[in-house]
Amino acid sequence: METVQIVKIGGKVINNDDLLQKVLRDFSRLPHKKVLVHGGGTLATELGERLGVEARLVDGRRITDRETLEITQMAYAGLVNPRIVALLQSFGQQAVGLTGADSDLLRSRKRPAGDIDFGFVGDVTQVNTGFLRLLLQQNLVPVFCALTHDGSGQILNTNADTIATELAIALSKHFATELIFTFEKSGVLSDVSDEQSLIARLTFTDYQQLLSRGAVHQGMRPKLDNAFRALRHGVRLVRIMNADQLENINQKSAVGTVVTLE
Amino acid sequence: METVQIVKIGGKVINNDDLLQKVLRDFSRLPHKKVLVHGGGTLATELGERLGVEARLVDGRRITDRETLEITQMAYAGLVNPRIVALLQSFGQQAVGLTGADSDLLRSRKRPAGDIDFGFVGDVTQVNTGFLRLLLQQNLVPVFCALTHDGSGQILNTNADTIATELAIALSKHFATELIFTFEKSGVLSDVSDEQSLIARLTFTDYQQLLSRGAVHQGMRPKLDNAFRALRHGVRLVRIMNADQLENINQKSAVGTVVTLE
Repeated sequence: METVQIVKIGGKVINNDDLLQKVLRDFSRLPHKKVLVHGGGTLATELGERLGVEARLVDGRRITDRETLEITQMAYAGLVNPRIVALLQSFGQQAVGLTGADSDLLRSRKRPAGDIDFGFVGDVTQVNTGFLRLLLQQNLVPVFCALTHDGSGQILNTNADTIATELAIALSKHFATELIFTFEKSGVLSDVSDEQSLIARLTFTDYQQLLSRGAVHQGMRPKLDNAFRALRHGVRLVRIMNADQLENINQKSAVGTVVTLE
Repeated sequence: METVQIVKIGGKVINNDDLLQKVLRDFSRLPHKKVLVHGGGTLATELGERLGVEARLVDGRRITDRETLEITQMAYAGLVNPRIVALLQSFGQQAVGLTGADSDLLRSRKRPAGDIDFGFVGDVTQVNTGFLRLLLQQNLVPVFCALTHDGSGQILNTNADTIATELAIALSKHFATELIFTFEKSGVLSDVSDEQSLIARLTFTDYQQLLSRGAVHQGMRPKLDNAFRALRHGVRLVRIMNADQLENINQKSAVGTVVTLE
């Protein structure tokens, strides 16, 4: 099976235009078929502040009311996605910007209000890979922002790591998939304050041990849960790494943390 | 040759959600292959006001400085385009939202600064129909917002009527194309204040006569210039009509103004 690399880029890269250009140039040079997934960095928060819409957090989690959803759309689909697509074009990549509503690629369900009503947040229920495979077959480069839709006309906000994971799982039926989460650290660290404490290879048993001694940073937990979920559903390899190392991922020397089931 | 209808929807439709839903439902029911092109209505202006960015007009024409471009992107690609795509999906259409940067569909050149520097405004130099034809062959429905790119990483603002015209011309090599400009009037009027003065059929000779007696409304002139340009470059039919009549365009009784060369 042909390889597809699904690369998620996050906050710090989006906020720094020089770094964004470097990362996109490196991404352009990856020889395999590939998919890019991006969040919006702090642009949504900044835009909210400019518009006088305060971020509402409950237990540290953002509530997406209608105004916040619009701000998210403006930041992700309006500012960031066309910028990334235009830059990739300038690097010779036939990029195509997407939300999950395009060709019904990512159908989601508004998260039911429990103790917390998260608002316009969607949990992915269906990935329709037909159009995605068509794009990949044509050597086009899909660029997803973190938006999905419910099939009834409503756009929903969905975590970009989750979108990357769901895409990788769905594509695993047709391609050898590698899921690459990039962020601002060199990988999974056994001591979050020490960049030298990189764990080069992390198994599920290792993860359980880290969890039991409280050594998994709060922000890393959903990423690792996604990583193991992906591996259990057919994704060949998951790598968690610093975005500025993207150019080295297909070299023999390991980069970042490779997550494996065993 | 198979027919493709290229439909432009404009300001008043975008601003009125009930009307937008009606128009998109009618658009969904059009039996031919189709392309939708939309502007942003007054959303960009409103967003600019909320952000404290004043619209700069010179001789009645908007200047697109960097902040204005970002506002345009946020309104067109962020708010309106995903909304339209999600609504079309809810009407059973496999819509795909696009800017001209996607797959290099619409390449443009920043308009050179003459007496007026229009800023980040692009004049279309190249339409790459390959990807567009692929979408149409798959019965996908391309939905364009009024953004293009220069090939060097820069998004540019381009008039939506012009985009619709350029797409129609480029597709004319492969399809029997019809270009449909919708707006809030019933068509070209011989007296702009009288909806009953609809001109059902307008030839180039008629247009010259209307021009010579100053009877062409300022806003109509670029639309008609685009219309005749399209007809001279292979577009089969141009219709200028009220968006709320879209359901009737394939019926025998004429709707709006049909523009013809002779």
